[in-house]
Formats: sequence, structure tokens, C-alpha cells
Amino acid sequence: MADFIYVALAGGVGGAKMAHGLAQVLQPEQLAVVVNTADDFTHLGLRISPDLDTVCYTLAGEADASRGWGRKNETWNVFNRIKQLGMPDWFQLGDADLATHLFRTASLEQGKPLSQVTRDLCRMMGVALQVLPMSDDLIQTHIFTSEGELGFQEYFVHRKCNPEVKAIKFVGIESSQPAPGVLEAIRAADAVIFCPSNPWVSIDPILSVPGIKKAIEGKFVLAVSPIIGSETVKGPAAKMFAEMGIPASALAVAEHFGNILTCLMIDKQDEVLQEKINTLGIQTYSSDILMRDEADRGRLAMEIIEYIKGWESAIQ
Amino acid sequence: MADFIYVALAGGVGGAKMAHGLAQVLQPEQLAVVVNTADDFTHLGLRISPDLDTVCYTLAGEADASRGWGRKNETWNVFNRIKQLGMPDWFQLGDADLATHLFRTASLEQGKPLSQVTRDLCRMMGVALQVLPMSDDLIQTHIFTSEGELGFQEYFVHRKCNPEVKAIKFVGIESSQPAPGVLEAIRAADAVIFCPSNPWVSIDPILSVPGIKKAIEGKFVLAVSPIIGSETVKGPAAKMFAEMGIPASALAVAEHFGNILTCLMIDKQDEVLQEKINTLGIQTYSSDILMRDEADRGRLAMEIIEYIKGWESAIQ
Repeated sequence: MADFIYVALAGGVGGAKMAHGLAQVLQPEQLAVVVNTADDFTHLGLRISPDLDTVCYTLAGEADASRGWGRKNETWNVFNRIKQLGMPDWFQLGDADLATHLFRTASLEQGKPLSQVTRDLCRMMGVALQVLPMSDDLIQTHIFTSEGELGFQEYFVHRKCNPEVKAIKFVGIESSQPAPGVLEAIRAADAVIFCPSNPWVSIDPILSVPGIKKAIEGKFVLAVSPIIGSETVKGPAAKMFAEMGIPASALAVAEHFGNILTCLMIDKQDEVLQEKINTLGIQTYSSDILMRDEADRGRLAMEIIEYIKGWESAIQ
Repeated sequence: MADFIYVALAGGVGGAKMAHGLAQVLQPEQLAVVVNTADDFTHLGLRISPDLDTVCYTLAGEADASRGWGRKNETWNVFNRIKQLGMPDWFQLGDADLATHLFRTASLEQGKPLSQVTRDLCRMMGVALQVLPMSDDLIQTHIFTSEGELGFQEYFVHRKCNPEVKAIKFVGIESSQPAPGVLEAIRAADAVIFCPSNPWVSIDPILSVPGIKKAIEGKFVLAVSPIIGSETVKGPAAKMFAEMGIPASALAVAEHFGNILTCLMIDKQDEVLQEKINTLGIQTYSSDILMRDEADRGRLAMEIIEYIKGWESAIQ
């Protein structure tokens, strides 16, 4: 049996950790990571792709684990001067991180598509597996809140997710196309893994790019629940479920994605929900899904791969 | 007699030193500095105004005197990463300098004119006198050389002024306008001072913005020669004269500017040229015009001011 091929859909930190785990147990040619780019924005004239950077820095071993974003051993000389000059300081920019943004901004202005820029950055950082932006087109998540319509980073970083979410829109998505390689990677894949990223603002944008959901349907799809108990490990996913009128739980995640899922991987503490999830036509697999450290990432990835391989051999 | 009002036209290092000298001996409201912006360019997506930055950093006491460009106590963290990522490294970007470029780029993208951005930067750096870009419009010096047409920074920094100059063009200048305040400052001035900047690529662009030369004509205009003997202190001015078929000298400077000049300030070693310059209808004043240190700047500025005041009271 030839090695399986996998596609992982990822947002920021949770997605990056899961992708890093998968990279530990798979060969680079066995895995493509499709990354949400609807968080992308332009700040101080720089084109910033927060999720792509988090995924790439994490895969390169260059992410700052304690801070949860940006690069390790980072310095802040430009940012300190930015503050002195009275420029907006709500989005922190490390010196080496800035070089990434300058590279991306200049490359895009030269007419290179984001997928090519991402490939160049991965090559320079020694990331061997395929990291693909969901689209080369600019798509921007807008959050409609109790305090008006906010760009995603404005909501997420500047306003610290405080405003109550009423609705979410991915501006520009209807006319967007998957980046080159995305549909090809999905079609070639034996299984698709939804990393434990925010369903509303990380996985949904990827699935909403015309053609991607259709390419995934019928594949073996395993999602790792971003909700444990009624909480999320990081970010506003649980708060968003609640504000959308849905109690946050692994069951809510299963209902959110619906029958595109073959299996939902849930935490052991949520085993009580297995039966309800199964009645949706979705398998469950329970484990310790919290990734506390790098060893946890690899261990969880190995469980996922073994589960998928076992299921595939069972039906063959 | 009320205090005189002065306008200085300036390019990069020589212009900045002279402006700094004038700032030492004049009140801020007595001096406006109009700065060449035809060296401006976009690099790695950043809008860079080398002459404006050199003038502002120098006036703020933040310029690096030994290097001759950029800021003192500068660090290079972003630039080191830029090199690691394989981006162009022929134009060096210090960390704090980068913050200036980010501020300018973001402000311009928000629709602020360059003159407003410059005013904001001056305020933040504590520069009290008026520093005006010659124009808010993008004007770009192109150098036609033995090796083809080059953008100014490409010629000046990347190619180190090596290609032989055949012709110089200020692209976009015909349709440009003086920045707000420029004509007003010239009209209000008792005298205009051409700093010892490159006649070809620093002073000529300023004089070529429609309306500026006409506003200056008839004023008392004193130029400080950027040529001492047959050499320039810094930059390619002497080389440009030679390649244009004109032996570089203070006389060549006088002939270059012609009778817009009331007086050319020359170095003592060029006193032999006084008679020939005078026959052009241009006064001469000879002194030690080399600015070796900050004290030289103030001393030279004081001599200029006293010469102008003496001339004005003589004709009244």
C-alpha cells in the first residue's frame, strides 16, 4: 500500500500546531496544508497574512510558542520607533517578522501571486511540505458586531474580540478562485483533515472559496474539534458559537460542519456527546486532543493517521 | 529692520549640512527649506524620500555624520533578515529609518500629501522650521547613461555613479506643481540660498518644478558652490560636469545657474575665478566653504546671513 496523501485545512495557532504534528509523522510529499487567508490585511502599507505566517513559522520551528504568535528570538526596534512616531501600535510587528511582510508586499506589488510568494518564503525558511493559501485573491473577513462592521484584525487584535458577533461575511469570496494547487492537492488526497481551528473564521472561509467544498465532498474528512467541553483552547470560537445562539461544544462543531465530516475527533471529556454526534452520520474518535507541547502535536497526528489508515483498510 | 526671511533649496548631505548651519543662526520662522524629491523611489514597497530624510534627520540632530546618510545609533535587524531572505540589499535600511518609511508609505496610501507627511515627521522629530518637499507630485530623476536609462537610486546607490552620464530627465515634472507653501515661502523671502547640493540632480529639479524658478527670479539669490577646485565634497557633481563636457569648477557652477544668481559663494582657493564669474553679472564672495563639522556649518551660515544683510542695507 503506497503512502497516503493528506490535505490539512488550517487557520492560525491551532492549525499551525496540528500541521506541525502532521509534518512530524509524514513525509513532506504526503501533506499539503491549505491555509485561511481571509484574515489578511494591509497595515502601515504592509500586506500581512497572519495565518500563513503562523503556519510557516511554526513549520520552520521559528514560531514563538509562549507568545502564541510571531517569531521566536524576535526584536522590536522598528516597532519601538513606530510607537515613538505615534503610529498605530495595536498590531505588533517584530523586526524579522517585518522582513516577511516587506518581502510579501514587494513581491505582490511586482505581480507575483500570494501562492508563489508563500512558496518562496517556505523555501527560504526550509519548509519542505506544500503550504498553500486558500486563494490568491484578496478575501477579507468582516465581523458584523454590536458595535458595527469591523475588519477581522480590527475585531480580533485591536478590539480583542470584545464586540458581540452578529454575523460574519467573507468579502470578495464569491468571485475568488482556489489558489493554484489547492484543488489538485485535495483531489490527490486520501483524506482531508480539518485542523482544530476556528470553524467560523478559519475553516469556513476555506470551504467557502468556490470549488473547494465540492472537491472535498466524498473524501474521508476528519475534523479535530477546536472545542473541548464548552471552551476553546485559544481564540474566540466558543464565544462566537454562544453569540450565534449555539452553546459551544464538540456537538455544535459537528452540527456546524454537518455531513461533509466523516469523523470528528473529540476530547475524552466529551465522550458523552459521541452518540448524538454519531446520529448525525458522523463517526467519533475520542482522545486527549489538547496540544500542550510539540510531543503532543506528533502524538495526536500519529493517532489521526492511524485512525484514517485503519478505516481505509477496513473498507477496502 | 525686521528679521530677514530666507528660503534654502537643498538636496542631500551638502544641503542638509547647510540647512543645519542656517538653523543654528536663524529663528525657525525665518527659514524654510525646500527639498529635492526627484530622488524619491519605491523600494520593497516602501516610499523612500532620501533627501527629505537626510535634511530632517540632520536638522533633528539624528543623522549619522560618519556614514553620511541614515540615522545615528541605528540598528539593522530587519535589514539582516532582508538579506537572509534573499531580498535586494543594495539600498540599506536601518530599523528606525524603516519606521520613517513605513510612516510615509502608510500616510501616502491614506491620501495624505507628502508635504503633510513631512510636516508630521518634522513635528515628531522636533524640527521646528519649515521643511517643504519641492512638490507633492511624484517626480523621478532618470539618468541616461552609457549603460542605458537608470532610475536615480539605481544609478546613485546600486551602480555607485559608475555609468557615464549622457543626459538627465526629471520624469513627471512638466505636469507637477510646487507643494503647498513653497511659492508662498519664496515670495515672502528676502533672499534665496542654493545650498551646496548637486546642481544637476538636486537644485535643477527644484528649479524645474513649474512656477518655482519664476518665483525666485528677481530675488537676491546666493548659491554656495558645491565645487571646490575641480572636485565636489561628496557625490557625483564634478563627474557629471565632466561627462557633460564641462570642466568642473566654481565658474562652471556659475555658468550652469546663470543670471538667476546674485552671488556665488566660492572657496578661497578658487578666488582666481572671481573675475570671470563677475563678468557673468554674478557677485562672488570667497571664504572657507568646506563644512568639516557642525561648527563650520554655523560659521558658514553666519557669513552668508551677514553678507546678505550687508548687501540689502547697502542698496536701501
